[in-house]
Amino acid sequence: MAFVNENYLKLPGSYLFSEIARREKQFRQENPDCDLIKMGIGDVTRPLPPAVIEAMHQAVEEMGQQKTFRGYGPEQGYEFLIEKIIEHDFKPRGVDLAVNEVFISDGAKTDTANFQEIFGMGNILAVTDPVYPVYVDSNVMAGRTGIYNNDKGQFEGIVYLPCNQENGLKPALPSTKADMIYLCYPNNPTGTTLSAEELKKWVDYARDHKAIILFDAAYEAFIREDGVPHSIFEIEGAREVAVEFRSFSKTAGFTGTRCAYTIVPKEVMVYDSKGEAHSLNKLWLRRQTTKFNGVSYPIQAATAAVFSEAGKQQVKETIDYYMDNAAIIRAGLEKAGYTVFGGVNAPYIWLKTPGQMGSWEFFDKLMKEANVIGTPGAGFGASGEGFFRLTAFNTRENTERAIERIRTRIV
Amino acid sequence: MAFVNENYLKLPGSYLFSEIARREKQFRQENPDCDLIKMGIGDVTRPLPPAVIEAMHQAVEEMGQQKTFRGYGPEQGYEFLIEKIIEHDFKPRGVDLAVNEVFISDGAKTDTANFQEIFGMGNILAVTDPVYPVYVDSNVMAGRTGIYNNDKGQFEGIVYLPCNQENGLKPALPSTKADMIYLCYPNNPTGTTLSAEELKKWVDYARDHKAIILFDAAYEAFIREDGVPHSIFEIEGAREVAVEFRSFSKTAGFTGTRCAYTIVPKEVMVYDSKGEAHSLNKLWLRRQTTKFNGVSYPIQAATAAVFSEAGKQQVKETIDYYMDNAAIIRAGLEKAGYTVFGGVNAPYIWLKTPGQMGSWEFFDKLMKEANVIGTPGAGFGASGEGFFRLTAFNTRENTERAIERIRTRIV
Repeated sequence: MAFVNENYLKLPGSYLFSEIARREKQFRQENPDCDLIKMGIGDVTRPLPPAVIEAMHQAVEEMGQQKTFRGYGPEQGYEFLIEKIIEHDFKPRGVDLAVNEVFISDGAKTDTANFQEIFGMGNILAVTDPVYPVYVDSNVMAGRTGIYNNDKGQFEGIVYLPCNQENGLKPALPSTKADMIYLCYPNNPTGTTLSAEELKKWVDYARDHKAIILFDAAYEAFIREDGVPHSIFEIEGAREVAVEFRSFSKTAGFTGTRCAYTIVPKEVMVYDSKGEAHSLNKLWLRRQTTKFNGVSYPIQAATAAVFSEAGKQQVKETIDYYMDNAAIIRAGLEKAGYTVFGGVNAPYIWLKTPGQMGSWEFFDKLMKEANVIGTPGAGFGASGEGFFRLTAFNTRENTERAIERIRTRIV
Repeated sequence: MAFVNENYLKLPGSYLFSEIARREKQFRQENPDCDLIKMGIGDVTRPLPPAVIEAMHQAVEEMGQQKTFRGYGPEQGYEFLIEKIIEHDFKPRGVDLAVNEVFISDGAKTDTANFQEIFGMGNILAVTDPVYPVYVDSNVMAGRTGIYNNDKGQFEGIVYLPCNQENGLKPALPSTKADMIYLCYPNNPTGTTLSAEELKKWVDYARDHKAIILFDAAYEAFIREDGVPHSIFEIEGAREVAVEFRSFSKTAGFTGTRCAYTIVPKEVMVYDSKGEAHSLNKLWLRRQTTKFNGVSYPIQAATAAVFSEAGKQQVKETIDYYMDNAAIIRAGLEKAGYTVFGGVNAPYIWLKTPGQMGSWEFFDKLMKEANVIGTPGAGFGASGEGFFRLTAFNTRENTERAIERIRTRIV
């Protein structure tokens, strides 16, 4: 008799985005003529940059010709792309990487979800609260946590690090044992960042405790202010204790095109029960070569064009566009008296709901009265209760209309 | 302190294809002018069909325009592709499938490797011997096996089903408990098939034992003879106990383009420790929506063109080309006195090495004397010892030259 992985049964039945979709659908049925503006999910709206389109066409052409056709590529990605990543994303920031420390994949979601596989079951997870649900769910499915505590809205066996108004949304170091620490900066959902000094504390903690930091830098391209680290490897000692996840999804509009990468320095070690050290880089290589067959060649060729002169300029324009949206949201909400976080170095705006209103109550109010859809903070964790996330990825027009509606209709 | 997943340490240090690469590299260094012909790995050489190229160009164009740009798609794939798959790959064979029973992915390797995740750790694996290594390795990494027994060349805790000359390379039903049964037909590496009657025995076994058959049909398109089932779902009762993996890699030359799909019927159930049934379809949906973000839109759009009239014709021509190669290999080897399996409904030819020669010894002899690279059967499992795999994916010219060399130089 085939048995189920019972860890899956620990997952709560209703998921954030399906619950949002359910409420939206019902509202649309009751209000068929409503003009809803979606400021909820993190999907982009601007087309792919022309340089990317051109490179993809060219690669497609290559795939149709006998002489230039490409079959299986390296599972870890083509060197032509990896070299561009190192040269443009890391060298200018003083970070030296070897080609075999960069692994191309089809998404940061995939990588952040799969990476836990190479760790033993006994490791204890630390996550910020609120948090991107994939870090937690993938570990729950693997069996690295206890059951879900409905009252707390948390899984047993995970160290949650609250980010609230009191601590300025900045998590404290774990006060109990933690071996795998997920950090996401610029942060989803709060839109906040850590300074180099603050990040250094985490690297030092990890070095002291032989813990690993799983650093999600998917929103790095949105950093506008000087002094905010773009990569954890800008921090001294990080090469010993950190891996970093990057994505082209938000940077270059690749949410439907799918390309990302993960940095695993050769110095990062995990230990077996005899205390012997094992290279995380080698383990991840083994995982990827066994369970993955690389990203589509036309997609990798198109991604390389993100780093051309034209591509860089075009990507910058798209990022500027979204960040101007973010500024409009921030300014509009502040003017209306909201307490607002994020939106300066991230495409996410995290607002405090007015009058201690619950996240879901505010969701309903916003949908019904302003016809704007956002994301309830409570959906990202217990400490997200009383907060709400808006994203900067809609069109300028819709962004301006949404903020105008919030300002005039929500009182 | 972060601990390693110690199951990874069970994997033997040297892998089949890296050992082949090592020996090839050394030979090339010693013989810089040699003209090696590679008949080893299963990679295709013919370009993508023109209909696919055209559709991909069009989709790339859509991604560059605001109005037609696509961001996140459904994790389980676009309905426009799923509907075509059902209509063309299954309906004509009397197999009815619902849209939500088909999951599009980036590869059958990925799916066959990941699918085990939704099963409990207590399940016992059954695999044929020889076998495609990914089924075994992915389960080893997950911890569903014991240690590797070097003498046997097998992992403890797996039920191996030998396929040898005595049983005509057809595995017997497991004689001891087995819950997850991996079958691959047309088979990699042996190139053999099962009749509907033979496959029915496996379905009946699975129904009797509430076991699940993980059926890899990646080479289905190469079936030339009538009466060979193309899908396990042509077999009565299979919808209760089987999932099926399909790939466009070999069919339409997608090894570097990446698209595949997996069928999970709603009736397939796995059980928890209380005996309660859980839908495998729902579990896989949860796995994919949590850990995967779907296949690139341009790739899915291109894949749909495989099913256009022009696409079907072009794919048929490519398959014919490879299968003509297979016939040349088979006929040539038989003429030279080899005992040969496969190559009729599969792109793989499985030959008995002459004079009880070991697989690796034959590999070296073939490389050194005929300058042809193949794959030692022993690399696919203990029962593969004394066998050797050649593939039909090279060019016509190289295939003919390779066989001529084997006939004239290997004595």
